Amino acid sequence: MSHIRFNPWVEYYKLPFGAAAVDQEIVLRIYVATSAQSPQVYCLYRKEGEDTQELSMQQIGTHWYECRMVLPEKGLYFYSFVIIANDEQSLETIYYGKGADSSGIGQATYDGNQVREFQLTCFKEEPIVPWYVEGVAYQIFPDRFANHLANHQLLVERRNTFHYGNYLDRPMYVKNQAGDVVRWDFFGGTLKGIEEKIPYLLDLGVTILYLNPIFSADSNHRYDTNDYFEIDDLLGTKEDFLSLVNALHQAGIRLILDGVFSHVGKNSKYFNQDGRYGDDVGASRSQASEYFSWFTFTDYPSDYQSWWGIKDLPEVNKESSTFQTLIYAGETNVIDYWTSLGVDGWRLDVADELPDSFIEGIRTTLASHKERVVIGEVWEDASNKISYGKRREYVFGDNLQGVMNYPFRDAILDLLLHRSSVEQVCQTLTEIIENYPLQFLLQSLSNIGTHDTKRIYTELYENERKFLLALTMLFVFPGVPCLYYGDERQMKGEDDPDNRAFFPWQTMDQRIFRFCRRLIKYRKTHQFLQKGDTNFFYQGELFGCLRIFENEWTILLVNPSEREQSVDTHSIHWLRSIPVSHQFIERISKQLPNKLLGTDFWIATFEEERKIGGQLSE
Amino acid sequence: MSHIRFNPWVEYYKLPFGAAAVDQEIVLRIYVATSAQSPQVYCLYRKEGEDTQELSMQQIGTHWYECRMVLPEKGLYFYSFVIIANDEQSLETIYYGKGADSSGIGQATYDGNQVREFQLTCFKEEPIVPWYVEGVAYQIFPDRFANHLANHQLLVERRNTFHYGNYLDRPMYVKNQAGDVVRWDFFGGTLKGIEEKIPYLLDLGVTILYLNPIFSADSNHRYDTNDYFEIDDLLGTKEDFLSLVNALHQAGIRLILDGVFSHVGKNSKYFNQDGRYGDDVGASRSQASEYFSWFTFTDYPSDYQSWWGIKDLPEVNKESSTFQTLIYAGETNVIDYWTSLGVDGWRLDVADELPDSFIEGIRTTLASHKERVVIGEVWEDASNKISYGKRREYVFGDNLQGVMNYPFRDAILDLLLHRSSVEQVCQTLTEIIENYPLQFLLQSLSNIGTHDTKRIYTELYENERKFLLALTMLFVFPGVPCLYYGDERQMKGEDDPDNRAFFPWQTMDQRIFRFCRRLIKYRKTHQFLQKGDTNFFYQGELFGCLRIFENEWTILLVNPSEREQSVDTHSIHWLRSIPVSHQFIERISKQLPNKLLGTDFWIATFEEERKIGGQLSE
Repeated sequence: MSHIRFNPWVEYYKLPFGAAAVDQEIVLRIYVATSAQSPQVYCLYRKEGEDTQELSMQQIGTHWYECRMVLPEKGLYFYSFVIIANDEQSLETIYYGKGADSSGIGQATYDGNQVREFQLTCFKEEPIVPWYVEGVAYQIFPDRFANHLANHQLLVERRNTFHYGNYLDRPMYVKNQAGDVVRWDFFGGTLKGIEEKIPYLLDLGVTILYLNPIFSADSNHRYDTNDYFEIDDLLGTKEDFLSLVNALHQAGIRLILDGVFSHVGKNSKYFNQDGRYGDDVGASRSQASEYFSWFTFTDYPSDYQSWWGIKDLPEVNKESSTFQTLIYAGETNVIDYWTSLGVDGWRLDVADELPDSFIEGIRTTLASHKERVVIGEVWEDASNKISYGKRREYVFGDNLQGVMNYPFRDAILDLLLHRSSVEQVCQTLTEIIENYPLQFLLQSLSNIGTHDTKRIYTELYENERKFLLALTMLFVFPGVPCLYYGDERQMKGEDDPDNRAFFPWQTMDQRIFRFCRRLIKYRKTHQFLQKGDTNFFYQGELFGCLRIFENEWTILLVNPSEREQSVDTHSIHWLRSIPVSHQFIERISKQLPNKLLGTDFWIATFEEERKIGGQLSE
Repeated sequence: MSHIRFNPWVEYYKLPFGAAAVDQEIVLRIYVATSAQSPQVYCLYRKEGEDTQELSMQQIGTHWYECRMVLPEKGLYFYSFVIIANDEQSLETIYYGKGADSSGIGQATYDGNQVREFQLTCFKEEPIVPWYVEGVAYQIFPDRFANHLANHQLLVERRNTFHYGNYLDRPMYVKNQAGDVVRWDFFGGTLKGIEEKIPYLLDLGVTILYLNPIFSADSNHRYDTNDYFEIDDLLGTKEDFLSLVNALHQAGIRLILDGVFSHVGKNSKYFNQDGRYGDDVGASRSQASEYFSWFTFTDYPSDYQSWWGIKDLPEVNKESSTFQTLIYAGETNVIDYWTSLGVDGWRLDVADELPDSFIEGIRTTLASHKERVVIGEVWEDASNKISYGKRREYVFGDNLQGVMNYPFRDAILDLLLHRSSVEQVCQTLTEIIENYPLQFLLQSLSNIGTHDTKRIYTELYENERKFLLALTMLFVFPGVPCLYYGDERQMKGEDDPDNRAFFPWQTMDQRIFRFCRRLIKYRKTHQFLQKGDTNFFYQGELFGCLRIFENEWTILLVNPSEREQSVDTHSIHWLRSIPVSHQFIERISKQLPNKLLGTDFWIATFEEERKIGGQLSE
């Protein structure tokens, strides 16, 4: 009978926690108690796509074995252990890998084919972008925020559009029987409207503005780009854009734009299906078009590859060199053009559709500008995402600096809606912070709702207390918090398009606004929230998050249940090694409340020297 | 073998032509040649619903028999003949009635059950309203004509409405999967907009404005009245209305409103389904409501009788005395209220849904105002229309003064689209002018297109020459011509809602506009067009219309075929007795063209004493 134990979330077993930088020493220790007196213990590791390496582990104490390694190349690595207990007492080969659940603790098997490897992310160290990690972001869907024109006017009279008669109306799609949008609906938000509301953004305290697409397009969401070098005329002019950038920067607010490079609009200057750019230009109207090679026609010109089969959005072949030239590589490219005009960062739409080389090309172009960021729309764990059969290289460096952290939103909802146990939520969250390099985690954009999800208040069945818990977690969790416009006014919204209602300027619930303002201020004034390490823990029904940076740290306790819960520091389940001494925990436990009301939270900040290194005790 | 002949369209057989006034002597003559030497000839006549009278006809010449009668009461009469040839030579009873086709000539039968009676309309003589019969009308769908506000604004920001982004957009319904309208769409026309365009109406030459509904409603067509005493706020205020009335009258233009009394809006103050008038008022929310008795609930409050099953339009019980009080009988009633403010006439929507007593009540109320008119929306021959199992009394006097003459529009389309032969078209038209009292015919509102039909230009497959022929017939035919807004600019439009596009102020085809202006001027300067009698005729493929008043008259020749047709006066088929001498026809035939090009017309005006009375020759 053998007892083997390894848990990468505990520092005595593995140092460092989580991802390792290139050339950083990694220490792995495993506890092996077998009937064999002198088992041979090996660590098997491999870089994905390469051969497995075998590393002999040295005994460092009774039942304890250790190896040290240095990974010379960034990438996704996997490792497991093999124990050969093959002496007079015993004849066993035991494989040890990841456990079946997502807790850190591993699992032994006699079947080498059954072993599940542990993931090890190896990344290239990069400097973080200070304004970004220190910031708080605010996402605006431009048609729906503010219109500077009096009396509800539209900036231009665009053909075949509908204009909402009242800012309070719920958005809707105007579709035909076949389900196609036949008229695009607009509320008429403008760039000048946003500029006029900068005092409001400053009052709220946000420091980063993320705008959904603003380039020329047919739809209200503008993901169907018609011209990458034109501001959509319903939003304003290039002058309006420059004025907005200037005013934002004067106010200390950075600007992130939405880069939509997977597809273009069917009526774009590149495709030109409806002929508005001329009778015989554009890929859809001329095979001699300079853009013809961008697209994949299956039956010219009627059938072509499009995003999710939506014919409004012809897909671009991102391997096309002329497309790459236009977007990031040419003398006048889209990324350079707008970044030079003051854009501070880019959010890449459907990053999974963009080859890594394409994203790396954008990153390279951005490198010639100072302190810019590029993040990607990825809905799952970005460290091991596979798209089109290929493992993605988002998190390793020289690629994306972060992603939109949807897994965190899922976990918050799982917790508050009791879709998962507190333990499971902690494990899921810990797996993300294990797999992401800290630089990537901190630079991911956290959200509890975007233009692509139900609004958080609606998602939580309009439970205001849970809504406050969700907001609190958004601001305490690692990653740059991004508030979706109007969530600070408790806007309701079912799935798209209901989640894109116009901003309710005429009504104002000061309580929620002030709550958000306090959280934003708290976030901006504490480095541990911006740059700190993170431990998730639970105790009974309670969920907890600890953030720590240097000697400053905070504890957030959340009671997602409807019932009062007693708080007991001694019963806390720490998933990771606790970063402070037990004595300290003991000391502060007196400051913690005895109990927490149903759907309530408690948060406090402390100062204490962080302990360094692992601990032998388990 | 018998030869019997009677044709009510020929003056020797019947005088007067068509309808007869109460107490007017009617002469009927029939040609009867039987094998019996002395047949007994009777005229059988009856007022609908009463017993048949038998009138013995006197022989006035070889084979000719005559009777004279006077009808003491207005109403719908029917007559036929019976010939008893029952002497030594013969043993026959022959019934003679209407022919199988709609030509005037009758038909004999031995089967008394097979005989079809001739219709005889008997009416109470009433003065015609001079401004009306002398006028030319113009119909405006108020949301779609002109907006006085700059930059395409709506007058108010109504909840859950869509506003067209561009005046050139085609109208469309925004419906859900079930086919219900979920958002009403508006272009934003206003009463002040119409007022500003009075110079345009004057330039065109129209003298009557017919407006589709303008009272408070939810929809853009406003047939779902919310409050009969409120102007719809998207159109303007009561002050705007008074200003428009005043400006119209200053310009010599009369105003006809649309009276919608069959149903109201489900969100009206009377029904109040959505509760906007209060939680517990209105029939749908309180059975104690003063309006509860207006409606017929089959399952309170969810199920109720509605117009054509359209739940937006709860049907009103027109027998309800409180409804009658509100509309026309009370101290402050809708008809009085608006008529006192300057409304010159009313067009009653879906007149078939209004009991005769209801219409007569409106007429009585209007009688206290000077020179007002009330016409009805009736799609078929109004003289013998049956609705809800009851013969309607529209044309007899003290009821409607006219109807919207849709049968004329049908005939014009039948002719130009070759859906019927020229002969059939002449017969259909002649039947209408036979059945309608002249006062009723002249006061009916003719159209070649309304908000309820395709636009005439589209109906004619955009054949511009046919379009000009249709316009010409509209202005030459009896009845007040009513031009649907924008037809003078050759607007296209399929069925509702496409026929309700916004007026194209920015584009102007001077040719069509000037053609309409010439026709309008011609109409306004010739009494024979306004008040004259009418003869339809044909010759080969050619269609003709003769209008005559006193000694002035006109001949219109229309070639609806695509080929050139020769004109030959001697081959003309006159359906009615010709009102002038053969010698005169002979004389003017020299002035007629020898031929008429395909889809062309010719018109000329003459002066000649009209001959009086019938003619023996056949």
